[in-house]
Amino acid sequence: MSSPNIPTEQWAQVIEKVGGPVEYKKIPVAKPGPGECLVNIKYSGVCHTDLHAVNGDWPIPTKLPLVGGHEGAGIVVARGEGVTDADVKIGEAVGVKWLNDSCLSCTFCQQADEPLCLTPKLSGYTVDGSFQQYCIASAKHVAHIPEGVPLDEVAPVLCAGITVYKGLKESGARPGQTVAIVGAGGGLGSLAQQYAKAMGLNVIAIDSGDEKKAMSEKMGASAFIDFAKSSDITKDVRAATKDGLGPHAVLLVAVNEKPFQQAAEYVRPRGTVIVIGLPANAYIRAPVFESVLKMVRIQASYVGNRQDSQEALDFFARGLIHAPFKTVDLKELPMVYDMMHKGQIAGRYVVKMPDAE
Amino acid sequence: MSSPNIPTEQWAQVIEKVGGPVEYKKIPVAKPGPGECLVNIKYSGVCHTDLHAVNGDWPIPTKLPLVGGHEGAGIVVARGEGVTDADVKIGEAVGVKWLNDSCLSCTFCQQADEPLCLTPKLSGYTVDGSFQQYCIASAKHVAHIPEGVPLDEVAPVLCAGITVYKGLKESGARPGQTVAIVGAGGGLGSLAQQYAKAMGLNVIAIDSGDEKKAMSEKMGASAFIDFAKSSDITKDVRAATKDGLGPHAVLLVAVNEKPFQQAAEYVRPRGTVIVIGLPANAYIRAPVFESVLKMVRIQASYVGNRQDSQEALDFFARGLIHAPFKTVDLKELPMVYDMMHKGQIAGRYVVKMPDAE
Amino acid sequence: MSSPNIPTEQWAQVIEKVGGPVEYKKIPVAKPGPGECLVNIKYSGVCHTDLHAVNGDWPIPTKLPLVGGHEGAGIVVARGEGVTDADVKIGEAVGVKWLNDSCLSCTFCQQADEPLCLTPKLSGYTVDGSFQQYCIASAKHVAHIPEGVPLDEVAPVLCAGITVYKGLKESGARPGQTVAIVGAGGGLGSLAQQYAKAMGLNVIAIDSGDEKKAMSEKMGASAFIDFAKSSDITKDVRAATKDGLGPHAVLLVAVNEKPFQQAAEYVRPRGTVIVIGLPANAYIRAPVFESVLKMVRIQASYVGNRQDSQEALDFFARGLIHAPFKTVDLKELPMVYDMMHKGQIAGRYVVKMPDAE
Amino acid sequence: MSSPNIPTEQWAQVIEKVGGPVEYKKIPVAKPGPGECLVNIKYSGVCHTDLHAVNGDWPIPTKLPLVGGHEGAGIVVARGEGVTDADVKIGEAVGVKWLNDSCLSCTFCQQADEPLCLTPKLSGYTVDGSFQQYCIASAKHVAHIPEGVPLDEVAPVLCAGITVYKGLKESGARPGQTVAIVGAGGGLGSLAQQYAKAMGLNVIAIDSGDEKKAMSEKMGASAFIDFAKSSDITKDVRAATKDGLGPHAVLLVAVNEKPFQQAAEYVRPRGTVIVIGLPANAYIRAPVFESVLKMVRIQASYVGNRQDSQEALDFFARGLIHAPFKTVDLKELPMVYDMMHKGQIAGRYVVKMPDAE
Repeated sequence: MSSPNIPTEQWAQVIEKVGGPVEYKKIPVAKPGPGECLVNIKYSGVCHTDLHAVNGDWPIPTKLPLVGGHEGAGIVVARGEGVTDADVKIGEAVGVKWLNDSCLSCTFCQQADEPLCLTPKLSGYTVDGSFQQYCIASAKHVAHIPEGVPLDEVAPVLCAGITVYKGLKESGARPGQTVAIVGAGGGLGSLAQQYAKAMGLNVIAIDSGDEKKAMSEKMGASAFIDFAKSSDITKDVRAATKDGLGPHAVLLVAVNEKPFQQAAEYVRPRGTVIVIGLPANAYIRAPVFESVLKMVRIQASYVGNRQDSQEALDFFARGLIHAPFKTVDLKELPMVYDMMHKGQIAGRYVVKMPDAE
Repeated sequence: MSSPNIPTEQWAQVIEKVGGPVEYKKIPVAKPGPGECLVNIKYSGVCHTDLHAVNGDWPIPTKLPLVGGHEGAGIVVARGEGVTDADVKIGEAVGVKWLNDSCLSCTFCQQADEPLCLTPKLSGYTVDGSFQQYCIASAKHVAHIPEGVPLDEVAPVLCAGITVYKGLKESGARPGQTVAIVGAGGGLGSLAQQYAKAMGLNVIAIDSGDEKKAMSEKMGASAFIDFAKSSDITKDVRAATKDGLGPHAVLLVAVNEKPFQQAAEYVRPRGTVIVIGLPANAYIRAPVFESVLKMVRIQASYVGNRQDSQEALDFFARGLIHAPFKTVDLKELPMVYDMMHKGQIAGRYVVKMPDAE
Repeated sequence: MSSPNIPTEQWAQVIEKVGGPVEYKKIPVAKPGPGECLVNIKYSGVCHTDLHAVNGDWPIPTKLPLVGGHEGAGIVVARGEGVTDADVKIGEAVGVKWLNDSCLSCTFCQQADEPLCLTPKLSGYTVDGSFQQYCIASAKHVAHIPEGVPLDEVAPVLCAGITVYKGLKESGARPGQTVAIVGAGGGLGSLAQQYAKAMGLNVIAIDSGDEKKAMSEKMGASAFIDFAKSSDITKDVRAATKDGLGPHAVLLVAVNEKPFQQAAEYVRPRGTVIVIGLPANAYIRAPVFESVLKMVRIQASYVGNRQDSQEALDFFARGLIHAPFKTVDLKELPMVYDMMHKGQIAGRYVVKMPDAE
Repeated sequence: MSSPNIPTEQWAQVIEKVGGPVEYKKIPVAKPGPGECLVNIKYSGVCHTDLHAVNGDWPIPTKLPLVGGHEGAGIVVARGEGVTDADVKIGEAVGVKWLNDSCLSCTFCQQADEPLCLTPKLSGYTVDGSFQQYCIASAKHVAHIPEGVPLDEVAPVLCAGITVYKGLKESGARPGQTVAIVGAGGGLGSLAQQYAKAMGLNVIAIDSGDEKKAMSEKMGASAFIDFAKSSDITKDVRAATKDGLGPHAVLLVAVNEKPFQQAAEYVRPRGTVIVIGLPANAYIRAPVFESVLKMVRIQASYVGNRQDSQEALDFFARGLIHAPFKTVDLKELPMVYDMMHKGQIAGRYVVKMPDAE
């Protein structure tokens, strides 16, 4: 079952070997196997993970040659055997996420922890991803994009948005409580601030620079703490809470290691430190004595499962989340990587497919 | 309201200055103030914390002069103003615990986290403890020792037993799941093994030496891993679980730092590392990348609250917990400290008051 | 310890016998005992429960003679023995709630379920309440009213507001989910709508009449269902949810029995029905077969504990909750009862003490 | 992919029309479609639900002609397209359960509540079940029977055992707490008693007759209450708990309606009533006033999900659960139905397939 006009060839950005380069060229369009669907990608967000995949930075090897990308938004145009309308419909707008597929049989999948699947497929990493016009994805794993949602703006939400929403859920922080977001001014951080507000949480933004301060205050943070200016971060974070006991949760979306070793000190007794960011070779660290006397919880949080994803998209569809982004054509992806490498990106880049209007 | 024959003087072990010595002498018997009761201590366990108090090892200063001890089992002989039968009855067997009193008003007390009270009183540390014949304790905080329970055997349960029970509760491990206990052969560890079994958990015991191995197997551990002999502790712990994925929880009651930096590696994905032991100057440490991909949870756990305490005692009263102990007279306490200092103690020492029969 | 100018006599509304009448007269000012404080009441809300107390409608007998009232807002002017600043300060603004005191020792109090205390004191029911200028209350149980909060407007929040907030917490509904509120246009219902929105929940309001419809829409309800006009309430409630599966939670604050027997049918599978309202002689009722196949949960919810109370007040202090009310002098209380009896009250009445300005 | 010797015909018990009879005859062996496997059934338990299916007792219509049975234990002999070793292996011992298949895509499946799937397949009800030699089942839904487990004894566990285990999990009762089991002497009840003990729970058995009393005591129940002899069941159940406050949970596996309307009265404040049994046309009923003041929770519980099933089987494999059963040949099924209809069955009947040894 498929739409009428699926071409046999398509444009894609392909990495042939570790370290790159990324080559813009025509490759064949794949056919969906059992349980799969074919998604005509319209837009795809670009994530730091994509650059890591090009560079082979992580211990797990990538598929080669590789089409990167895991924030793809598009339209289902074909379905493989065994796929039903309960899974996905032809013509439906869907998102291709980092977790392209999971077994749905192992003990983690059985407990709705698909991201912990023992045999996962990862988009743009162990299988081809969304930097192509036609992408294969598991019909049971694509995210269902609610009607009326613009496919360009939603693209970055498919990874960054879902991930921070998941982290906030895992924190157990309840409406009315306070969460400190470390790295609040970055891509994940600015989404986290918006999700936190939508979830009824009070936000303490931690980052550096006046621009990020202004942005955080505009988004409704009750306090901004500039870690570059603070002489005692623990004291300052605690002081930013009404009763001086510290935030109920700390969300670590920072890109350097230091906060991963400080957060346990300023989180409230019985509070939770959520570990999301992945600085290279970094370690979580906390003093045993003080942590025990405060009954601190440290919870590492990965990407969202399917239900988390739908919930995160629903917040977006209700107009509560806005992710600043810039759009360039797919063929300009190398330029985005280049800027990323140089640390020149503010907000998120989205690549547009040749046939997207 | 009080029993007829309360003396005005009593025997006690008193520390006059930091570093000791501990002096066995007569001191006055105190009178219970509002909300307090007077407990005629019969037996008291001796805990490493008591030695730390003598030596001033910890950042928080002790009261001076100080009567140590926080595992006291005895009989209520007098009550201060405002104490009712809902709190405690004259003649009742009770335990004096580490948390002698808490405000019951702060936000933590309001949430049944009395151990996190902002203004706690700590037995044998900030207030006089159980190494005396008559000890003051908060009437709302004494543990109620079920009828028929021997006061000597229950003494060590009042701190060590409650603490490991609390940790097991905090782990969230459910009956049928597996917990690895690191330091399984020690005082806390052997109690933890018994509580875990009584809670329907499967136990992997981690410690070193054939004696501890034999003891663990006798207590029903499904596996014993000798950390001194293992060349790959992560591999061995995982292999000890049926599906090779690692234990659902790890309980750290070890006295050295190393396991606090390893446990996150062998705990099961979505599993929990419970931090209880307090090696001096130790740090919890875990790799960010692997922890995130496994969604590891690290939860530091302090002593039990009042409800935890009653539950832990109830397990004991039902005959499910046996704590090996040796009894010596109160005046021999310095000898116990001496052995403790030299690391010569196996099991738990209990001191007997002059009037206990 | 007390303020200088506490009179020996005061104005109060007193019930001498079951069935009334309520008499406005001078009575002595009581002195706070151990653990108690004396509150100079400024305003007190009037609740249906007060009328039930007058009429002896409930199985539990009231104290006689009785001063009613359990939504009292005032200032602490004296403290009894054993009360510390950790409990309450002289000069502090506090609320006297339904649960005037609890033992803080029984198993329920130990688990922070003070409302389930085995020996509770109930304001305006088993002890004198807030329809007097100087009211005795437990220092550990008074609600702490945040600075800057007007004492007249907050009065009704002290019972109605806390109760619906507690119910919403008990429901387990998370931000982004949907709650149906039955009796949405009443005193509790309108507060529930506001708390639900502040907690990030989507609201379906169920009640009858155009006025209540308009009010609900103004408060942001996504749908209003007029039970008097609906020919199939189950169908209509389900249709008001995006996916047609029904609301995640149903909050029953209705004053008649019917919804208590319908809610299990339209709540979402795995959803929760929260039972709060207390229609006389009413029963909860649900079909076994359908409830099992949907795994429905029915949770009865009473008043909030101390922590719930502080959280509910904090939402109010942040300006998120507005409770329409009318103020009359304390001496006019019988008129309020009269209107209540006739069902003529819209919104909440608050009585003002003679010395409140 | 399949075993070599799958016949084309097989013996089965077939219902041609509502009301029966059940006919023992040869029918074709089906071929597994995508995602399915073919199970060579060796033994199958017989459940009351099977009789309901024959008689068309329930609102949902059955498939016709129908092969009943949903407690089938056998060996996988063939797999359809798309099935991998992560799902199930050829030669593996598996169980065919009530939930033969679910979509794994709807919001309930995504949250690991497969039994609430919007488009479920039910064994022996909407698809052919286990009263045949070769049964089709979803490869992602078959239960994995641990090695060494006898297929006859485990058969009844596949429905009854999993269901009561699920109910006990849903109750939230923790090791050391008390559960009252109503209908404790029946098929589900006797399994529930064993699971409860294995989970560290204390059991109050409620049923009638000396035989059931003796059986319950043998299984370790701390009390047996004969509802036929008790003049005040609420009083007696409460008295059977140490503190007189009632059990933490009540598990309703009774076959008549009365206990479904009593349990809320004797459950402990904050306790949970678990509704499992399905008496015809029965209603749950509880007084609003008393339930609110006690904060009672009523939770209806259906069959277990896949993870629950594996956990329940694991308890069985560890030798903690023993289900008394009698074995007859498949062709004698009508006799079992007959006895069931007459209420003559004690314990569980298991039918043996012609090729089982």
